[in-house]
Amino acid sequence: MTSAEIRSDVAREAAGPHGHDGAAGATSAEPVWWGWGPAFAHQPLPASVADVLTQLGIPVRPSRPVALADVRLPPVRLSATARHALVAIVGEGHVRLEAEVRVRHCRGRSTTDLLLLRSGDASAAPDAVVLPADHDEVLELLRVATRERIVVVPYGGGTSVVGGLAPPAAQGRPVIALDLRRLDRLGRIDRESGTVELDAGLRGPRVEELLAPHGLTLGHVPQSWEYATIGGFAATRSSGQASGGYGRFDELVVGLRVATPAGGWELGRAPASAAGPDLRALVLGSEGAFGVITRVTVRVHPLPAHRVHEGWRVPDFATGTRLLRDLAARDLRPTVCRLADETETLANLAGPTATDDNDTSDAAASGGGGAGGCRLITGFEGSGAAVAERAARVAEILRAGGATALGPDAGLDWERGRFRAPYLRDALLDLGVFAETLETAGFWSSLPALYTGVRRALTDTLGSAGLAPVVMCHVSHLYATGASLYFTVVSAQGDDPVATWRTAKAAAGEAIVAAGGTITHHHAVGTEHQPWLGAEIGGLGLDVLRSVKRTLDPAGILNPGVLVP
Amino acid sequence: MTSAEIRSDVAREAAGPHGHDGAAGATSAEPVWWGWGPAFAHQPLPASVADVLTQLGIPVRPSRPVALADVRLPPVRLSATARHALVAIVGEGHVRLEAEVRVRHCRGRSTTDLLLLRSGDASAAPDAVVLPADHDEVLELLRVATRERIVVVPYGGGTSVVGGLAPPAAQGRPVIALDLRRLDRLGRIDRESGTVELDAGLRGPRVEELLAPHGLTLGHVPQSWEYATIGGFAATRSSGQASGGYGRFDELVVGLRVATPAGGWELGRAPASAAGPDLRALVLGSEGAFGVITRVTVRVHPLPAHRVHEGWRVPDFATGTRLLRDLAARDLRPTVCRLADETETLANLAGPTATDDNDTSDAAASGGGGAGGCRLITGFEGSGAAVAERAARVAEILRAGGATALGPDAGLDWERGRFRAPYLRDALLDLGVFAETLETAGFWSSLPALYTGVRRALTDTLGSAGLAPVVMCHVSHLYATGASLYFTVVSAQGDDPVATWRTAKAAAGEAIVAAGGTITHHHAVGTEHQPWLGAEIGGLGLDVLRSVKRTLDPAGILNPGVLVP
Repeated sequence: MTSAEIRSDVAREAAGPHGHDGAAGATSAEPVWWGWGPAFAHQPLPASVADVLTQLGIPVRPSRPVALADVRLPPVRLSATARHALVAIVGEGHVRLEAEVRVRHCRGRSTTDLLLLRSGDASAAPDAVVLPADHDEVLELLRVATRERIVVVPYGGGTSVVGGLAPPAAQGRPVIALDLRRLDRLGRIDRESGTVELDAGLRGPRVEELLAPHGLTLGHVPQSWEYATIGGFAATRSSGQASGGYGRFDELVVGLRVATPAGGWELGRAPASAAGPDLRALVLGSEGAFGVITRVTVRVHPLPAHRVHEGWRVPDFATGTRLLRDLAARDLRPTVCRLADETETLANLAGPTATDDNDTSDAAASGGGGAGGCRLITGFEGSGAAVAERAARVAEILRAGGATALGPDAGLDWERGRFRAPYLRDALLDLGVFAETLETAGFWSSLPALYTGVRRALTDTLGSAGLAPVVMCHVSHLYATGASLYFTVVSAQGDDPVATWRTAKAAAGEAIVAAGGTITHHHAVGTEHQPWLGAEIGGLGLDVLRSVKRTLDPAGILNPGVLVP
Repeated sequence: MTSAEIRSDVAREAAGPHGHDGAAGATSAEPVWWGWGPAFAHQPLPASVADVLTQLGIPVRPSRPVALADVRLPPVRLSATARHALVAIVGEGHVRLEAEVRVRHCRGRSTTDLLLLRSGDASAAPDAVVLPADHDEVLELLRVATRERIVVVPYGGGTSVVGGLAPPAAQGRPVIALDLRRLDRLGRIDRESGTVELDAGLRGPRVEELLAPHGLTLGHVPQSWEYATIGGFAATRSSGQASGGYGRFDELVVGLRVATPAGGWELGRAPASAAGPDLRALVLGSEGAFGVITRVTVRVHPLPAHRVHEGWRVPDFATGTRLLRDLAARDLRPTVCRLADETETLANLAGPTATDDNDTSDAAASGGGGAGGCRLITGFEGSGAAVAERAARVAEILRAGGATALGPDAGLDWERGRFRAPYLRDALLDLGVFAETLETAGFWSSLPALYTGVRRALTDTLGSAGLAPVVMCHVSHLYATGASLYFTVVSAQGDDPVATWRTAKAAAGEAIVAAGGTITHHHAVGTEHQPWLGAEIGGLGLDVLRSVKRTLDPAGILNPGVLVP
């Protein structure tokens, strides 16, 4: 089975066929409005999980979202003039005002977003959802929005976990979500250069479906892959689970087409250039605040002929991290590489596991790390000889460093469960249990302090609130000079989980800044990371972002208050 | 011999010990004021070269630069107040007004620059040369310059070939060259992360001298390596001859310290981030127009234990280019890779060769390509097994594609001559012969049209002027999705070589734009590439550059008219 086949299978299992009908409403394959994935993919957790949670001091209090009819939505503020102007561009059926459509485009998919939605709070919903057909319609919409003082939220998969879809500086102006799902074409395939043009509204699975008949893969598979879009990957500098082999999304992009209120913009005439600063880098990560990315040209790879997965047990997290450093320094990054710390390794055993049919004993047998230490997953994709050779060299270094091979099953287990975490979060929220993630990255020398600092900040804040936090971490993206750390927190909800998490997240943010890391490795800034952006890029950096925004979006209609404070 | 030893040897041979005395005047190891390298490194061309040139229709008319005393310099426009303010910051000895010092900081090292200098035209010389000791002094100088309306030209090695050191929009204001040679320290070595901090004024050879005792190398070796500086590499997005193994300079940079008129700026807390756009990319390539880069943190490598060079003959340039594409697509880029077209291959045989003791028969024997076709050089650096393995895989692909191995001597020949081209240009100018280079890059699919278009533009323009141009080209930097093309032109000078070249260069620029390439792969924009910058980054791109400049340099004192039109 090729990776595209496997990925397609996962997508089918998880979400069914994806709608490309141009409608923004619900179909059975659309995710539930209050969580992740379609209803049929939601399963309650086994009773044993509740037992473990209770033993950890986390009370289980079943809790369901309110009914859709009970969700509180603000009235539509769009004037008839404005509405007609929008309809004149995209047609009647593509300006949607129905309650359900608005709720579905309300906020993103952070735990805070879900807690608010589940409680019936859709106060941040857009007034309308507009579905342009192409780049030119986006340009026209931005002209009308500038004229009519309408705030525009570029909307891809709606999977932001940093508040990137609820602009706080709308200041009473009407807000439209610009849903890009109709921009769904595979453009020019340049076989010689190994690049393809992809429309911004294409979701992860659809891209692989379109590329597979050509023997190609994008290989960009973040956890949000089932729903997130090409435009979103570019706008947030997404990094996929196979970034070690295929690269971060910003490394894959060689060309960009952007619609801005100041006009259209095309960038990228060569893989590398010295024609001044690389302005592609200014669009990548611009989070819908500078313009609407409508198409990207990206590097693609041949579908890998072989894939090898391996599970490993390393003595401890520090040793494992050093081993990964050694691999990265020798330019031996596996395609996939994930090192869980002691807590996450245990949680994979005791908690709700990656796959449905895994019980504790299975997990131990398949290499979850039952004998202590930390679980490491490595994966390699590519052509036959190269994959085997690379895997062998990595295995040699890992063994020499004290790692024990656990066989391919642990790796395949991980792969089967690679998209499950957000579904699991829904199930935990259904039990009244809090679950959220945050991530950072740093240079190798700063990683130990970064790990300790963030862990302590989360544990102390939530612990002193009596919420019995379980704080887990894994390393998941390697670079020659450093790596990312991805933290998962499971805790009791307490009385005001949204406020409590804000406090814990702030403590983690301070710890990241103090330890010299970046406030986000692949989740983007949105509104949630804004308080620490100044520490990261300096006052001058903020001034530069503001000046670029003024140039491209003089009326400040694009995602105001997101990214650029 | 390690590469650092070899590189050090080359540097010693070429230029003697480098001055770090904080003075900006001439020492015996300093380059001549009218050309490249110190006087002792200049050698006349053998008579056989003149014969070949004559046969090609290029007249040989010996021509020497005027005496230094005859160079025409504008009067110093710096007021006493301004001069005292500068002296108060850096000290009396570090504000230099002597004629020779000013002439030495006049313009860069394009052929146009040299033709003007040799004719005694130093009209573009700065009024003074100021040598700050550190970042804080640079910041203070920028404050004073802003207040006193003094134009500041950040000055590293003075090796710009695109007019980057003669700001055209000075508008009568006094101009100082900010010579950064005193910023010459190796800062923190972070062994774990594989990074080091390097001051902006460090020249290529000195960096390797400082790193070698630590077993490290930067591996960034552009042709200008003997004189160009770290700050210049960053400001122009330089690419070294070994970019296939070590990366372009912008890929090596993980952190930057910049002094701007608006204040100090530090960037880079992790190898990768999603904290908004990567603003490091806005400083890299900013060509002294946004700020003065005072320090960079860069990735370094262990000194390579092994180096393998190989010469190849491929049937023709198109076949060779396709073979390089195949290597790059398979992630098998050699550390060094240079494919000469038919003309450049012949010129390497018939013309002045890379090494002094090479005559035509030697060159043929050592693989210059005497049997027709094109010469390809591959080089590999790294640890033992990996180098051999990689070289073997590349060799297999090349052989299968019709290439004939010529043995390591051709590669070593290339290496011995890797820094000789600018010396050779001086010798050609001494014969009254014109020689200049230009470069571009594009995606693989656009490369054939790019090659044909630029070649034709140069040949037609100079040919119709009766200047008997010889236009050569090589591919020298490979990427997965494309490569660079580097053109060398040798021709008669005619009556007004500066104006003639401007016409030819404009035709080449138009051809590059028409074929979809980038106007420059590693030479930067300066003033010479400005006419095509708008075609490359769009009107919006120019507006963005202007807005960033206004934010960081509100008074417009930094290199006005360079890069940003």
